[in-house]
Amino acid sequence: MKVLYIYAHQEPTSFNAALKDTALSALQEKGHEVKGSDLYAMRFKAVLDAEDFPVRKKPEVFKPFLEAIHASKTGAFSSDIKAEMEKVEWADLLIFQFPVYFSSMPAIMKGWIDRVFAPGFAFNPITQSAYETGLLKGKVAMLVATTGASEEWYSKGGAHGDLRELLKCITHCVFEYAGMETLPSHIIYEVSSQSREKGVWELERYRQNLSGL
Amino acid sequence: MKVLYIYAHQEPTSFNAALKDTALSALQEKGHEVKGSDLYAMRFKAVLDAEDFPVRKKPEVFKPFLEAIHASKTGAFSSDIKAEMEKVEWADLLIFQFPVYFSSMPAIMKGWIDRVFAPGFAFNPITQSAYETGLLKGKVAMLVATTGASEEWYSKGGAHGDLRELLKCITHCVFEYAGMETLPSHIIYEVSSQSREKGVWELERYRQNLSGL
Repeated sequence: MKVLYIYAHQEPTSFNAALKDTALSALQEKGHEVKGSDLYAMRFKAVLDAEDFPVRKKPEVFKPFLEAIHASKTGAFSSDIKAEMEKVEWADLLIFQFPVYFSSMPAIMKGWIDRVFAPGFAFNPITQSAYETGLLKGKVAMLVATTGASEEWYSKGGAHGDLRELLKCITHCVFEYAGMETLPSHIIYEVSSQSREKGVWELERYRQNLSGL
Repeated sequence: MKVLYIYAHQEPTSFNAALKDTALSALQEKGHEVKGSDLYAMRFKAVLDAEDFPVRKKPEVFKPFLEAIHASKTGAFSSDIKAEMEKVEWADLLIFQFPVYFSSMPAIMKGWIDRVFAPGFAFNPITQSAYETGLLKGKVAMLVATTGASEEWYSKGGAHGDLRELLKCITHCVFEYAGMETLPSHIIYEVSSQSREKGVWELERYRQNLSGL
């Protein structure tokens, strides 16, 4: 399988980095081909703006939707977006790994989705390409998320509410919207206060999950 | 009342800009004091990284939570974060206006929340300051959101699901988490295909909503 690993953590010695390294080696051991997007290391531009569209359809007024639809026909996205789109096209499986910030993605990961999953590339309301007819149909996506808060806080009836429900903003409204099948999210709660032993155990649990793909 | 208006749209001639201008004049007419944060115009930095903490507690390894807690005691946040925190402290009401990207905020707005609503400033797990004891208690927050998709798509049982449920990632997990009271979100559906008359009517509906505050 061809796997694109989209990863968002700032620190190479973090538990998130260890998770990512565990994943890359587990996937390669199983014979999968892997490409990565290490968003902070790439200094990936998070903000969707006019610079994303070097050849504008309407130079006098910036309409993001219109420019994205236009660029998806002409290929005139900025080079950093095109590079990510090529990796998405190549991949069978997309894994998104990040620490949960306010029950959702960090801005740099949201920016990757805002800019790379452009209308005309991932979905298209004009041609009614969404969900069953989403433009990334045939691909599979998976979230891997770590939290600071406890599983109790993130459960139904807990203070924040069920994290898997909250993550539907991504699993349903991004992945399924673009036509992708979504694997169960791999969640590791309360990582900031976990013991070294628990951390080692979680790396092994993640390795086993990926080995079963 | 003191109102901080946090706004995210790239284009000064957009419907979103007209909404923002309508709001600012309606609020000023009613005698409120208003400060604004026009995120794209400010080229607001969306990405939380080590540059946010010019005086590090642990220079050898970047732990965002630890550095934010430290900076909230010493004041050593980067100047752009401090400027926004001062506006938040000043304000009684915070209004966040943005076009919905993938059922949620654009990355630039998420980045404002990730960076400005730092642990130690908006909430603090160490002192159990969250929800009823959140650090922004006494303030009120409100979302103003425009969508491309229809109200039917964003209703319970619709393709995306109930937008007000999806926005709980913000209204509950950000605003209420920080201790703020949340006003009902003001939502305008399907703006990209609305007629000029509908647009004028929506501006008036928004003006009346704000006049009632």
